[in-house]
Amino acid sequence: MERHFELELRRVREQLLEMGGRVEEMIGKAMDALTERTPDLCTLVLEEDRRVDRMEIEIDEACYSIMVRHQPAARDMRFLIAVMKIVTDLERIGDSAVNICQSVERLNQEPPLKPYIDLPRMAKLVAGMVREALDAFVRKDSTQAARVTEADDEVDALYRQLFRELLTFMIEDPKTTTRALHLLLIARNMERIADHATNVAEDVIYYVEGRDVRHPRRPKAEAGGRK
Amino acid sequence: MERHFELELRRVREQLLEMGGRVEEMIGKAMDALTERTPDLCTLVLEEDRRVDRMEIEIDEACYSIMVRHQPAARDMRFLIAVMKIVTDLERIGDSAVNICQSVERLNQEPPLKPYIDLPRMAKLVAGMVREALDAFVRKDSTQAARVTEADDEVDALYRQLFRELLTFMIEDPKTTTRALHLLLIARNMERIADHATNVAEDVIYYVEGRDVRHPRRPKAEAGGRK
Repeated sequence: MERHFELELRRVREQLLEMGGRVEEMIGKAMDALTERTPDLCTLVLEEDRRVDRMEIEIDEACYSIMVRHQPAARDMRFLIAVMKIVTDLERIGDSAVNICQSVERLNQEPPLKPYIDLPRMAKLVAGMVREALDAFVRKDSTQAARVTEADDEVDALYRQLFRELLTFMIEDPKTTTRALHLLLIARNMERIADHATNVAEDVIYYVEGRDVRHPRRPKAEAGGRK
Repeated sequence: MERHFELELRRVREQLLEMGGRVEEMIGKAMDALTERTPDLCTLVLEEDRRVDRMEIEIDEACYSIMVRHQPAARDMRFLIAVMKIVTDLERIGDSAVNICQSVERLNQEPPLKPYIDLPRMAKLVAGMVREALDAFVRKDSTQAARVTEADDEVDALYRQLFRELLTFMIEDPKTTTRALHLLLIARNMERIADHATNVAEDVIYYVEGRDVRHPRRPKAEAGGRK
């Protein structure tokens, strides 16, 4: 019985990592679809999203089933609750990647507004945050998790910079407005992915240290303005 | 022991409803701050947000503590898991209300771009969704919860309409760009609140019927385009 319980926990952890790997890949593919102007990648992202949705449900069910059947002790209960919270954020990261693809499909119908430099940088940053947050979970490393929450500031700074730049484009040349708006939506989704990764990292810290680190920070300014 | 357990569950339910009432009020206040141009209301929203953040942690802790101490049976376990998922969405609704206030503060520094009609309508709709989702939870009424998920479509339609209208403003007169962008961000936050309310409603259905209804729908088009 005890051994079976351990096996079930390990299986949950493996599924979680697989799900994390998938959403991380979705972010990269969505960005490649923009920079390489390859709409096929968006089709892949959509397919992947369906798989990620199913995984959220499967992992949730597995955690719930373990809770009810094994009545785990405090530490394992905290692990299972952390997993159930983490999959919610991972699933929403997948949704953001799909949202990015929707803007990419529009953008790819017109010539690029400007060379894409900041957005790929943001994509790399936020995908790295997702990977690091899950890695911290597996290693039970709250210091590593705390680093993820710090990276969030860098993403915010990039977002604010991009917001101001795109606003200038729109004001100076209204012909750019639609494209600038879609680039802005993409940046906004990146920023949201970073928030979800931060939530995951906070869940990791809660799981490892048993203390709640949520909400030291305020919701962030959305409009490229003061923090 | 049994009675104490029941009392603890009831306490959790009451706290959840209180938290729901608070975020619902935050949405209304954020909108009033825009239409009545009263920045003081935004200060109230910020204060309320801190309280909502604390409540999320308190309710989470209460659920976790009940799970570990009482080892609840399947149905109660499902209730507690539903609560833990719902508070996450409520907390993020609070964040959206704060984000709305950040745009309101900017908007109130300039004359209104146009009479605010659609946004207050959206605010009313989404606040109603939050209320109805929680009401469905208390009544264990999955039919009522399903109605919430339907209202989401109406919010999306309003959002798409507003998106197109504001885009036209920006293109025709670049002097309106900053204001139009902030109105767009507000609408986007409303749409996000509706998504969170829908998540809550889906958790209610899961709790009541024990089946998972998440992900029949795709992430929505963000840019006022095709659904």
